[in-house]
Amino acid sequence: MSIRRRKISVIGSGFTGATTALMLAQKELGDVVLVDIPQAEGPTKGKALDMLEASPVEGFDANIIGTVDYADTADSDVVIITAGIARKPGMSRDDLVSTNAKVMRAVTEQIVKYSPETIILVLTNPVDAMTYEVFRTSGFPKHRVIGQSGVLDTARFRTFVAQELNLSVEDVTGFVLGGHGDDMIPLVRYSYAGGIPLSKWLPEDRLEAIVERTRKGGGEIVGLLGNGSAYYAPAASLVQMAEAILKDKRRVLPAIAYLEGEYGYKNMYLGVPVVLGGNGLEQIIELDLTAEEKAALDKSVDSVRTVMKVLN
Amino acid sequence: MSIRRRKISVIGSGFTGATTALMLAQKELGDVVLVDIPQAEGPTKGKALDMLEASPVEGFDANIIGTVDYADTADSDVVIITAGIARKPGMSRDDLVSTNAKVMRAVTEQIVKYSPETIILVLTNPVDAMTYEVFRTSGFPKHRVIGQSGVLDTARFRTFVAQELNLSVEDVTGFVLGGHGDDMIPLVRYSYAGGIPLSKWLPEDRLEAIVERTRKGGGEIVGLLGNGSAYYAPAASLVQMAEAILKDKRRVLPAIAYLEGEYGYKNMYLGVPVVLGGNGLEQIIELDLTAEEKAALDKSVDSVRTVMKVLN
Amino acid sequence: MSIRRRKISVIGSGFTGATTALMLAQKELGDVVLVDIPQAEGPTKGKALDMLEASPVEGFDANIIGTVDYADTADSDVVIITAGIARKPGMSRDDLVSTNAKVMRAVTEQIVKYSPETIILVLTNPVDAMTYEVFRTSGFPKHRVIGQSGVLDTARFRTFVAQELNLSVEDVTGFVLGGHGDDMIPLVRYSYAGGIPLSKWLPEDRLEAIVERTRKGGGEIVGLLGNGSAYYAPAASLVQMAEAILKDKRRVLPAIAYLEGEYGYKNMYLGVPVVLGGNGLEQIIELDLTAEEKAALDKSVDSVRTVMKVLN
Amino acid sequence: MSIRRRKISVIGSGFTGATTALMLAQKELGDVVLVDIPQAEGPTKGKALDMLEASPVEGFDANIIGTVDYADTADSDVVIITAGIARKPGMSRDDLVSTNAKVMRAVTEQIVKYSPETIILVLTNPVDAMTYEVFRTSGFPKHRVIGQSGVLDTARFRTFVAQELNLSVEDVTGFVLGGHGDDMIPLVRYSYAGGIPLSKWLPEDRLEAIVERTRKGGGEIVGLLGNGSAYYAPAASLVQMAEAILKDKRRVLPAIAYLEGEYGYKNMYLGVPVVLGGNGLEQIIELDLTAEEKAALDKSVDSVRTVMKVLN
Repeated sequence: MSIRRRKISVIGSGFTGATTALMLAQKELGDVVLVDIPQAEGPTKGKALDMLEASPVEGFDANIIGTVDYADTADSDVVIITAGIARKPGMSRDDLVSTNAKVMRAVTEQIVKYSPETIILVLTNPVDAMTYEVFRTSGFPKHRVIGQSGVLDTARFRTFVAQELNLSVEDVTGFVLGGHGDDMIPLVRYSYAGGIPLSKWLPEDRLEAIVERTRKGGGEIVGLLGNGSAYYAPAASLVQMAEAILKDKRRVLPAIAYLEGEYGYKNMYLGVPVVLGGNGLEQIIELDLTAEEKAALDKSVDSVRTVMKVLN
Repeated sequence: MSIRRRKISVIGSGFTGATTALMLAQKELGDVVLVDIPQAEGPTKGKALDMLEASPVEGFDANIIGTVDYADTADSDVVIITAGIARKPGMSRDDLVSTNAKVMRAVTEQIVKYSPETIILVLTNPVDAMTYEVFRTSGFPKHRVIGQSGVLDTARFRTFVAQELNLSVEDVTGFVLGGHGDDMIPLVRYSYAGGIPLSKWLPEDRLEAIVERTRKGGGEIVGLLGNGSAYYAPAASLVQMAEAILKDKRRVLPAIAYLEGEYGYKNMYLGVPVVLGGNGLEQIIELDLTAEEKAALDKSVDSVRTVMKVLN
Repeated sequence: MSIRRRKISVIGSGFTGATTALMLAQKELGDVVLVDIPQAEGPTKGKALDMLEASPVEGFDANIIGTVDYADTADSDVVIITAGIARKPGMSRDDLVSTNAKVMRAVTEQIVKYSPETIILVLTNPVDAMTYEVFRTSGFPKHRVIGQSGVLDTARFRTFVAQELNLSVEDVTGFVLGGHGDDMIPLVRYSYAGGIPLSKWLPEDRLEAIVERTRKGGGEIVGLLGNGSAYYAPAASLVQMAEAILKDKRRVLPAIAYLEGEYGYKNMYLGVPVVLGGNGLEQIIELDLTAEEKAALDKSVDSVRTVMKVLN
Repeated sequence: MSIRRRKISVIGSGFTGATTALMLAQKELGDVVLVDIPQAEGPTKGKALDMLEASPVEGFDANIIGTVDYADTADSDVVIITAGIARKPGMSRDDLVSTNAKVMRAVTEQIVKYSPETIILVLTNPVDAMTYEVFRTSGFPKHRVIGQSGVLDTARFRTFVAQELNLSVEDVTGFVLGGHGDDMIPLVRYSYAGGIPLSKWLPEDRLEAIVERTRKGGGEIVGLLGNGSAYYAPAASLVQMAEAILKDKRRVLPAIAYLEGEYGYKNMYLGVPVVLGGNGLEQIIELDLTAEEKAALDKSVDSVRTVMKVLN
């Protein structure tokens, strides 16, 4: 028997992809392959080499390579898709969707060709629709194609609450359903500090302000950076999901999952609480919703479906 | 008694400064203040917030703020200077030196004003001269102003050797003296794999090729990136030095230290092996050099002195 | 300025004390002083040296010494008391209380003499009364004398729930009030898996069985070991509390705190949710209790008071 | 594809075996099975459960079970043997050898039955002979049966040197050849602080004193403990070897390897520098020895062969 190191490929070597590669290596989750298009070959290789040169000092053992050849991704245990463009001024949303959907199809075909048994995590926006497009293109079973949005949304929510209460982030939890960003449905009743519901810690208007700030959390960073969008927290979120799978942890996390009737929807991807483990998405957790929550989720679903229409 | 968390300020919020801030926080070495000039206020705050939002997921407790107000750096235990410009096409080296020296003076005055007891680490190039400029401006004793270059150079050397031998980077060591980059003097006789001198592992021409690649290691990354220079390994190197100080580890590392006769030089900063601990630079280790090594070091010293002339 | 490494003293070098010392060192929380009585000098020094010899391999920088001289504990940031005897067959509970109270007084006098500004954590049983005895002897303000029981009780509860649900322990939380062991009052309504109340995951009888198993969790280990009691989870619990203080985390944890009217009780120590940070116990969190919970807490208080009577 | 967590079995639930299990779990190297004989069922299960109950607080995801049924070890990636008796007063060395050889044969048969593809690490003393016995009984190829002694010996050596020089243990290395303990041959010329040979740091008599203390390092702990022998550093050493294999690190470490002519010996196990990776022992590194070192190694070999004679 020979023990093989795990292998994770990250598609897209922009800030998020590169930071994801770094964090995967820091945790020694496996060897990392950072992939981009031929035009980005130099920077992709440069970032990978720079990271690798940090390894003796950071103290991790992981090979990291930059490449434009998908053959290097062969037999990946997990593949993370961060590729795609951001919406530019003057670009319609439909154009964004079409362009990124094309990217999803192209990268998915390559991923599937070289790693037919892998588990795929998707970050590219609009993420619910893009995860669906990857699912459809891959032909993979639903448990092997999963999208990220809720881990990031709750991370932001937890940060804001911890700051407000001056408490450790370790003891603050959050809970979201539905789409990313504006369509996010935070379940404040399932959010706690030290296990105590947040409604006992904060007045309603402060909680609402934090929820609103969380909804616009991506935009807040975009506004500050001036040029580009968040990458540290998105990368950390992807890595947490990948770790849950690679270490078969069976963690309960919010993720974008393919629904087949759960919560009353089907044939679409949506953010719901799931169990992530060695098989990828191992279970969708169904909650009883209030009428108000269900209405908000319906609205979130409508948004996703509107975007999905552009795909066909 | 109240136990205060350590505090580290990072001056310059570019890629290196930001990555340094991230790695300091990941290791929970203390709270982190990322500082830049008023024109960069948005991105500085944006990066700091994005990192902070990664903390619930990465699992670290550290406040990270972005600021343009040095008052926020008050009472820092360690301050790391990454600020300054990179050499641009058409710019003479003297112009680079003058410009960055001006930056060093400006930031040092602010640092000293708010943290008169801190320990300063300098990364800005040309680093030997810039560390000297910070020392001179600060009026600090020499043990509280230290430059970084050797940790990075050896990290690259170790990476290349580990790859060549297909061994863990943990078991490969390197050793350099003198200036950064082209003037770097690798002491291959003090470099090992598994404690066994590298000369027993590799033929001389391979070793020489690796030494040469290490010398040009910064340029290799610049060439690949196309736009900008390395930041992952430089950041990791700064953090290793900061950690040695903040945890009073008394590590033996190469660093840029103020010489007062050691190795036959004085009134200048040069890369030598030192002991880093709670007092900053606690000891300079003097080695017997071969005639060849001494000649190379003289040459390295000449380079540094030539640069220093521009400072006056 | 010189940065001094933190210092933690552990009183009692039995299995729990020794394991606590190991875990403190592994996390590089500071230098560790393991203290015992003169008759145990050899084993105390032997365990400390054996641990220290693990440091190059485990990769931690922390001095660990074994000693019988409290002068070695001088200026500790935190002191952890694990000393005392376990109840032996034929020994009355009052005898146990008297004997351990005597131990508490003796060690506290020494601790206070050498570290008048330290924060003390107490593990010795019966822990509510022993923490009170340390408080009384020390003359310290209440925020610097804290007892451990709830972190351990919830750790056991979380373990059992995670096993039952086949989920990561990271996503399962628990919550207890009141005394240790039989008098423990688990607030199941504040206990979750993935943020979702446990009542949605498990039928009531299963939850009750887990609560009951948690109450008798110490006895379960005693029964299995045959000779001696649990030490791994108790040590980990002490270290989590120490870490919250040493890193000024402001974590929300259950702890044994001195009450001055909170929950309707005063002049006694009792297990309640608190905030632990750089000042030690920074806040007691008061919850609204149901009538049933309040009644159970009253009963728990009676038990503690009965034990406390033996102290006078 | 499903990603399976690694599995490590530890045979012998005494202090060393239990501490090994803890450290494996803390590093999340895989699930851990702690095995002992039926008479020790209670304590074995008790220790495993106590450790598992530490997991929510220590923050690791690893199942740990105690068992007396080797079926539970099925398909282990690595098996670590710590079982066996220690020499008791009045017991001849030959009796010790015979008794432990019998234990080795019994446990090896069970290991092989349930994990025919595993890699076995042996700690039981006299370890060179016991590793040979496991090798012979298993019928495994030599790269899958490896003994531990050099990692521990060098850990002690490094600790003593770091203390003497007041330097971080991270920057001190050591190097040994040959048997364990009295027969240990330290290659001081391959031992460094900060990459600088120890002969430049310490006078010869101090170095000799440290070498002598290292040789008797096991006895020093036995003498202090009064009852029993070292377990923290031995456990850490086993875990470092297991980690090198489980993460396919290709680390250069001293280990007890089967020789087929290397260093001039064959058909025996002896401590030599090796490369440990995903295949177990991947390479034996041969060094040129001085006449003095070769003579010492011959003597060490004689000692091992004398012990081996008892086996037949």
